[in-house]
Amino acid sequence: MAEKNIKFYIINATKIAEEIGLGGRTNTIMQSAFFKVANVIPYDLSVKEMKAAIVKSYGAKGENIVNMNYAAVDRGGDVEKIEIPSEWSAIEVKPVENTKERPDFVKNIMEPINALKGDDLPVSAFVDRADGTFPAGTTEFEKRGVAINVPEWIADNCIQCNQCSYVCPHAAIRPFLLSEEEAAAAPDGTALLKGIGGTKEYKFRMQVSVLDCTGCGNCVDVCPSKTKALEMKPLGTQEAEVERWEYMNYKVGYKDTILEKSKTVKNSQFAQPLFEFSGACAGCGETPYIKAITQLFGERMLIANATGCSSIYGGSAPATPYCKNYNSGKGPAWANSLFEDNAEYGFGMALAVNKMRDRIQDRMEKAENSSLSTETKTAFKEWIQYREDAEKTDEVSGKVIANLKKESDPIAKELLALEQYFSKKSVWIFGGDGWAYDIGYGGLDHVLASGEDVNVLVMDTEVYSNTGGQASKATPVESVAKFAAAGMRTRKKDLGAMAMTYGYVYVAQVAMGASQAQYFKAIKEAEAYPGPSLIIAYAPCIAHGIKSGMGKTQAEEKLAVEAGYWHNYRYNPLLEAEGKNPFILDSKEPDWNMFQDFLKGEVRYSSLIKSFPEAAKELFVVAEKDAKWRYNFYKKLSEDK
Amino acid sequence: MAEKNIKFYIINATKIAEEIGLGGRTNTIMQSAFFKVANVIPYDLSVKEMKAAIVKSYGAKGENIVNMNYAAVDRGGDVEKIEIPSEWSAIEVKPVENTKERPDFVKNIMEPINALKGDDLPVSAFVDRADGTFPAGTTEFEKRGVAINVPEWIADNCIQCNQCSYVCPHAAIRPFLLSEEEAAAAPDGTALLKGIGGTKEYKFRMQVSVLDCTGCGNCVDVCPSKTKALEMKPLGTQEAEVERWEYMNYKVGYKDTILEKSKTVKNSQFAQPLFEFSGACAGCGETPYIKAITQLFGERMLIANATGCSSIYGGSAPATPYCKNYNSGKGPAWANSLFEDNAEYGFGMALAVNKMRDRIQDRMEKAENSSLSTETKTAFKEWIQYREDAEKTDEVSGKVIANLKKESDPIAKELLALEQYFSKKSVWIFGGDGWAYDIGYGGLDHVLASGEDVNVLVMDTEVYSNTGGQASKATPVESVAKFAAAGMRTRKKDLGAMAMTYGYVYVAQVAMGASQAQYFKAIKEAEAYPGPSLIIAYAPCIAHGIKSGMGKTQAEEKLAVEAGYWHNYRYNPLLEAEGKNPFILDSKEPDWNMFQDFLKGEVRYSSLIKSFPEAAKELFVVAEKDAKWRYNFYKKLSEDK
Repeated sequence: MAEKNIKFYIINATKIAEEIGLGGRTNTIMQSAFFKVANVIPYDLSVKEMKAAIVKSYGAKGENIVNMNYAAVDRGGDVEKIEIPSEWSAIEVKPVENTKERPDFVKNIMEPINALKGDDLPVSAFVDRADGTFPAGTTEFEKRGVAINVPEWIADNCIQCNQCSYVCPHAAIRPFLLSEEEAAAAPDGTALLKGIGGTKEYKFRMQVSVLDCTGCGNCVDVCPSKTKALEMKPLGTQEAEVERWEYMNYKVGYKDTILEKSKTVKNSQFAQPLFEFSGACAGCGETPYIKAITQLFGERMLIANATGCSSIYGGSAPATPYCKNYNSGKGPAWANSLFEDNAEYGFGMALAVNKMRDRIQDRMEKAENSSLSTETKTAFKEWIQYREDAEKTDEVSGKVIANLKKESDPIAKELLALEQYFSKKSVWIFGGDGWAYDIGYGGLDHVLASGEDVNVLVMDTEVYSNTGGQASKATPVESVAKFAAAGMRTRKKDLGAMAMTYGYVYVAQVAMGASQAQYFKAIKEAEAYPGPSLIIAYAPCIAHGIKSGMGKTQAEEKLAVEAGYWHNYRYNPLLEAEGKNPFILDSKEPDWNMFQDFLKGEVRYSSLIKSFPEAAKELFVVAEKDAKWRYNFYKKLSEDK
Repeated sequence: MAEKNIKFYIINATKIAEEIGLGGRTNTIMQSAFFKVANVIPYDLSVKEMKAAIVKSYGAKGENIVNMNYAAVDRGGDVEKIEIPSEWSAIEVKPVENTKERPDFVKNIMEPINALKGDDLPVSAFVDRADGTFPAGTTEFEKRGVAINVPEWIADNCIQCNQCSYVCPHAAIRPFLLSEEEAAAAPDGTALLKGIGGTKEYKFRMQVSVLDCTGCGNCVDVCPSKTKALEMKPLGTQEAEVERWEYMNYKVGYKDTILEKSKTVKNSQFAQPLFEFSGACAGCGETPYIKAITQLFGERMLIANATGCSSIYGGSAPATPYCKNYNSGKGPAWANSLFEDNAEYGFGMALAVNKMRDRIQDRMEKAENSSLSTETKTAFKEWIQYREDAEKTDEVSGKVIANLKKESDPIAKELLALEQYFSKKSVWIFGGDGWAYDIGYGGLDHVLASGEDVNVLVMDTEVYSNTGGQASKATPVESVAKFAAAGMRTRKKDLGAMAMTYGYVYVAQVAMGASQAQYFKAIKEAEAYPGPSLIIAYAPCIAHGIKSGMGKTQAEEKLAVEAGYWHNYRYNPLLEAEGKNPFILDSKEPDWNMFQDFLKGEVRYSSLIKSFPEAAKELFVVAEKDAKWRYNFYKKLSEDK
């Protein structure tokens, strides 16, 4: 800037917006600031035109809204010029030092790309990436610090429920358990609580990674404590948390066996998320679903990801949010294929793993008459017996490997080369509604029909989010979307009901904001089910225009279920085998009086009132009728004998 | 043959097979004949080896079967050498004369191609086909005469129910009504009956086109008369029928307004089939479904055809079985796109037609202030009012056209150019289960979801028939197919139930052999439903290996329903709008005692007993369990309040 003599202006639009009552909406202020400094038309004229436009846009919403926007225009003029000192031209740029050693990939590839210097990288820089893979767990080195406000933990108010951690879209707030020594060695002023329940022997701390937090505020919103144990504070006030985070994350680490992690939502949060700090929007409704799955099954997961938001934040080159468990060194293997073949892609992963594990079993069986020790052969038999039991296989695999390392028979070498396939894998197929309901549906149906043991997670935003908000078959009647500007005219497709017609597919509809426990149950049942599973997760999105903001996405999920807009259920074929009704309707009878208000709370619906008032009147009625039709269908299923 | 001094042998294997009890199975006889004349190994040795193979293949089936096959080997040796007279080299080949003038296309393109001289055709021969279309209705000039036996009508036994005509896969047997004059002018010896019911004023005749018949015998099998009114006779004895057929078809023609054709199956058969003499197999289970649809709606049909058998017999170049009504000159427009996009293809046809009809309406509305006569403008208003009412539109369109021809305003010319779009179209999407359940399912689902007024007919053979019998998702558990040699292991996909989840898709499952009337109802309801309709038709196929033969395909459909293997139902969203249960289970409670016998009656199932006896035992049980599971699901639906 100093060298090129650049004119530099600043304005604290965020602060102004808050002051004048516009919340996080800074666009009018910034527009006014632009006209003030750009001089494309006389500023006075631009102010006059902007105010005229405000009356046109918001006149119907009342004087108060108009005045707030007038103020935004006026205050936008308070833009401030910063004189650039000439000595800035001599500043030397030094990278921030991290306590954790940055891998070569981060130093030599990721950081140059993030600094927009990727074009300068020579081909030779990628020689280690010739197989097309990118290393996992590199988002932890980004430390973007993009939040304006971040949560501050108020230890005294905390009831240690870990709900804030469960819902965090970026894994930026996590509970830690500290031994006496760890507690003693913590940075000065680190507040700690005595652990409760099964964690009494330890100190408890809820730690925020303030440089990874995006500041959405869902953690604060879901905190069930009478007096909130979290409060949003400006990022600048939380600098001390940077060191604390590093101490907790790298030194204290994750004590995920003190409490059985698969037992409760609370327990699960002591496990390390193997999906962290992704590039998803602040408040994203999708990412908390993924994170919880990685906490339970991440070390043995293979993920096939459809095109869409989840493929972008799941692998936004150069940084990768999927990471390895610090203790075991294991984590999800992740890859993205095409929009139209993702189910098939994951199916192929499952087939390939089965084939390799069949080979292991075949070699073990053939080794019966080899020179291997009796102990090794006994371990083989155990492995074969338990190969489909995830926990047991892991235990036995340790034995098998230890024995194989002592053997000289060539078969031992061959088996050790297959070591990564010893553990039972958890194959997941991720995607959005654009993939699952539309473009990839033919393949998804084929894979579900196959009976193969794969797990499908559909993050249903009811619209093509990543490509800009086009209508999909998951878009409900009345919703405004691209290609459906006058409101969608057909009913939302019932993907779950269609999958249920097979009778051997596990199906769940979930909304974690409405029931954290129901989602937790669903992922455990789905993973354990020895066949295809489909979880359809309601995921609020910036494309919805939630009027209460993206800090309330969890609350919006709750509202959706209470109002009858979304229904949570589980269909488990194993129950039918026991002579029970396989269908369980988890959500309660909705309060239909809330339905219209729910719609009006989101711009995708409310905007229709303005643009097509006549159609809107009719479609709001149809939307409620459709929701009831669907609920009645589920209710009938749940009452089946 | 004479010129090249070819050795020529004949054997009447069909006659021998009948004599020794092998029915239509001539393969062993022909194999033996081949060894007798080919001299590749000593004939005695070949006989020994063939007999050894027979014991191996059929030993388990008992002495009787073995002896029949022994006899086949022995009789195969009775092959007879024919001496070719040298004067044959001077024979001049003359085409058969037809009473109907053969169009240029038939003479110049079709006949050369059928004579295997297509390679000799110059590019210029196709100049009139530059748009890619082939003329319709050309199979009537093929007169293949491939049947060995054809039905002979025994007038005295006939009850004039027309069922034989309804089920004929090749439209080769049709009822005709003759006026007094027509009866008098009929060829000598033409048996006629007095018409019954509403046709009393006319003479009635059931006429076979013996040169177009493939000799399957379904007509004889379904004849409900106490003493059959049809009897299979050698083709050679029926030469007189050729002239009679031409007289009936071209001179007498189709009196389809004497009785309301859409009222009953019987009435519908007086209408001209606009799909005739296709290249489908003798006894094909698919083609009778198509034929009936063309009799009701053919004059205003557009058909998008998926790849598969129906695209082959539907347009086996150079001959086309879809044809025009002799009176109106109108008939189905047919085209085949790809396996994976046929639903979309038909959807596009519907959209295009809608667009053109919207344009008609737009021009008519704009003409309000033009110089057109009041009469014309009144006709316009009527057309706009009734444009979605097929019959009424046709009536009004005549008025509009007559008026437009009198007008000089340029808008009249523009509208007359759109004349072909005046009538309401009936858009159909045809395909098999490989298309609908598998490869094209993603698109089919999308089109059904769209709410557009299209009609889908799925001819479900439960296997990829045309490509050679690979398993599809329509293949039920236990069935043997390619890629499922050890029996299919997953349950048949319930395509109808999946479509029903939309709530606004008309769905029917049919098997005309089980209920001719139910199918007739279904096509009328589907066509009339102002939204997407899906008809899933059970279609026996040569790939099933029906032990009673392809002359019993209609009977096999009946058996399938009675045994609980297939279920007929209709789901009509219009009923729900009336507050009724939209689902009607048309088939009766099955007789489950028949289920196992039904399976054993088809080689696709019974072969498993031989190849995988252990698996077969288990899978036969599973197959029945699955069928019951499915029936119970339908039953529950039908009991919904």
